[in-house]
Amino acid sequence: MLSFLVSIILFGCSINQEKDNTKFGIVIHGGAGTILKKNMSNEMELMYLDELEQAVKIGYNIIKKNGDGKEAVEKTINFLEDSPLFNAGKGAVLTSDGTVELDASFMDGKSLNAGAVASVKFIKNPISAAIKVMSDSPHVMLSGGGADNFAKEQGLEIVDQNYFITKRRKRSLEKIKDIEKAETVSDNFQKELINSKIGTVGCVVLDKNGNLYAGTSTGGMTNKKFNRIGDVPIIGAGTYANNKTCAVSATGWGEFFIRNVVAHDISALMEYKGMTVEDASKEVIHKKVAKLGGDGGVIAIDKNGNIAMEMNTSGMYRAHIDFDGKITVKIYK
Amino acid sequence: MLSFLVSIILFGCSINQEKDNTKFGIVIHGGAGTILKKNMSNEMELMYLDELEQAVKIGYNIIKKNGDGKEAVEKTINFLEDSPLFNAGKGAVLTSDGTVELDASFMDGKSLNAGAVASVKFIKNPISAAIKVMSDSPHVMLSGGGADNFAKEQGLEIVDQNYFITKRRKRSLEKIKDIEKAETVSDNFQKELINSKIGTVGCVVLDKNGNLYAGTSTGGMTNKKFNRIGDVPIIGAGTYANNKTCAVSATGWGEFFIRNVVAHDISALMEYKGMTVEDASKEVIHKKVAKLGGDGGVIAIDKNGNIAMEMNTSGMYRAHIDFDGKITVKIYK
Repeated sequence: MLSFLVSIILFGCSINQEKDNTKFGIVIHGGAGTILKKNMSNEMELMYLDELEQAVKIGYNIIKKNGDGKEAVEKTINFLEDSPLFNAGKGAVLTSDGTVELDASFMDGKSLNAGAVASVKFIKNPISAAIKVMSDSPHVMLSGGGADNFAKEQGLEIVDQNYFITKRRKRSLEKIKDIEKAETVSDNFQKELINSKIGTVGCVVLDKNGNLYAGTSTGGMTNKKFNRIGDVPIIGAGTYANNKTCAVSATGWGEFFIRNVVAHDISALMEYKGMTVEDASKEVIHKKVAKLGGDGGVIAIDKNGNIAMEMNTSGMYRAHIDFDGKITVKIYK
Repeated sequence: MLSFLVSIILFGCSINQEKDNTKFGIVIHGGAGTILKKNMSNEMELMYLDELEQAVKIGYNIIKKNGDGKEAVEKTINFLEDSPLFNAGKGAVLTSDGTVELDASFMDGKSLNAGAVASVKFIKNPISAAIKVMSDSPHVMLSGGGADNFAKEQGLEIVDQNYFITKRRKRSLEKIKDIEKAETVSDNFQKELINSKIGTVGCVVLDKNGNLYAGTSTGGMTNKKFNRIGDVPIIGAGTYANNKTCAVSATGWGEFFIRNVVAHDISALMEYKGMTVEDASKEVIHKKVAKLGGDGGVIAIDKNGNIAMEMNTSGMYRAHIDFDGKITVKIYK
């Protein structure tokens, strides 16, 4: 509660005093999980709050100046991918082999066009590759070496695996391997295991033209094997946008988010049952995902700028700026 | 019309005279596309009708004897994968490199558990690998070499690429490459191009325990590049099952089926708007997919045994046996 107040005091101020009658807005997340104040140093907390604030302002400043929501999502996620704090791009979690395999997807709510890359290894900014798949290929989803080659042909920045790998994630992989070897697993370790399965970045935007966009990018789960693909590159599960309803980006234990077709289900509850974006997000996260045993959260924004930031975990790195310029940055539930 | 009557006369007879009060049923497809009587020899037509009849009876005989719907879907699709006539397993279409890359997925409507493999190259029966991912891994989706290795570890049959490749598909690849090189494309070639993007096999089942299951398997599109993944291994797009509503398997131009989250949307229209399985399938195929410019079809069965076999193409290889044992096998619209 104290930290909640701290974030409101620090970041609850308005960064924009002029009024604009057109509704627009942006919401971002940097992953959900067992994120507890008691386990977080003040220094780390401030680093996360600072990075989230910087990220959300990037997209906000684009749409405030009548810019394209697609660019707002891309540039915001690029910043989060480049930050070593989050599980996407640089600082992504490691596979069982100690390598990095990245997934990302993007959807345009006006055209219902979409793009995704799965299990890529050398693309610095996978969200940009997902957007390129959408705009410069006849496909929606490319994977593995083929997706890496496509990105290279398109002139996107290609990097060595070492670029992505951080000491922090190497330690996490060792720890998870130790926990998985152990015969009994304490509650704390159980939480770490679940945390190792979740972690993502995402951004949803309503721009001044009334268009909705969603994007999500991730390194997936720590210690993953067999070229596992989670919900992030799955249109309908980790990412969905439709100008009729909302834009959604999910973060959670991917398998449960695929089985619940989470992002599309939120949109369907709005379109077919007339639910609000908040109620639909609550229904899917707290009832449907939780019922199957899954953990995670979603961010969503509807065509009128109403938002949802729902999670069934103890925290989700998240930030929002509304059309009034009011900025909110939060970590804990 | 004549061929429609032929199929009804040949295959419209009942294979089961005893009455059973429990509702159950099975529907299969072998792909949709521009399939016209005038382009089909009598011999080929009979071969397709015969293979479809054999396939649908495999699953029917399992569920009729109170067997598991999961096994019914698996064994039926295994037969279609092993047949060189359909674009799945043996006889799958070829990538731009002349290789085969297979996708498959399966969903259990009772548990909402699911499994999928994408871009696999050496698994003889990808639907069996999708089921293994569901039952013997903590994941929903595995891809590329990782998925092939998983299947091998699980003891599934591994084959050489040559097993899958047929002369007919080699010719198709050459033709499509020629068409794509041509400066102008005639209407007939345009149809061939669209046909080259679609082709799948699928099966949906309601078993005597009231459980719904769906499975889909494919070689994807001819001349595909960059490890493209279509709708087939995407839970919610190509495959979805939920005991509350229905089981769906799609076949069509995958990109449009992903963007429309086709299989889950049919379920959502039933659950949230109270539509019948037939009306929901019509809405999604004829309005939503067609609106974006996509071609294809779906098969679906609901929890009461009502079925849908909808397409916006001129044909879809399909068959159905209801709880009375009445068998229907059709090719043209």
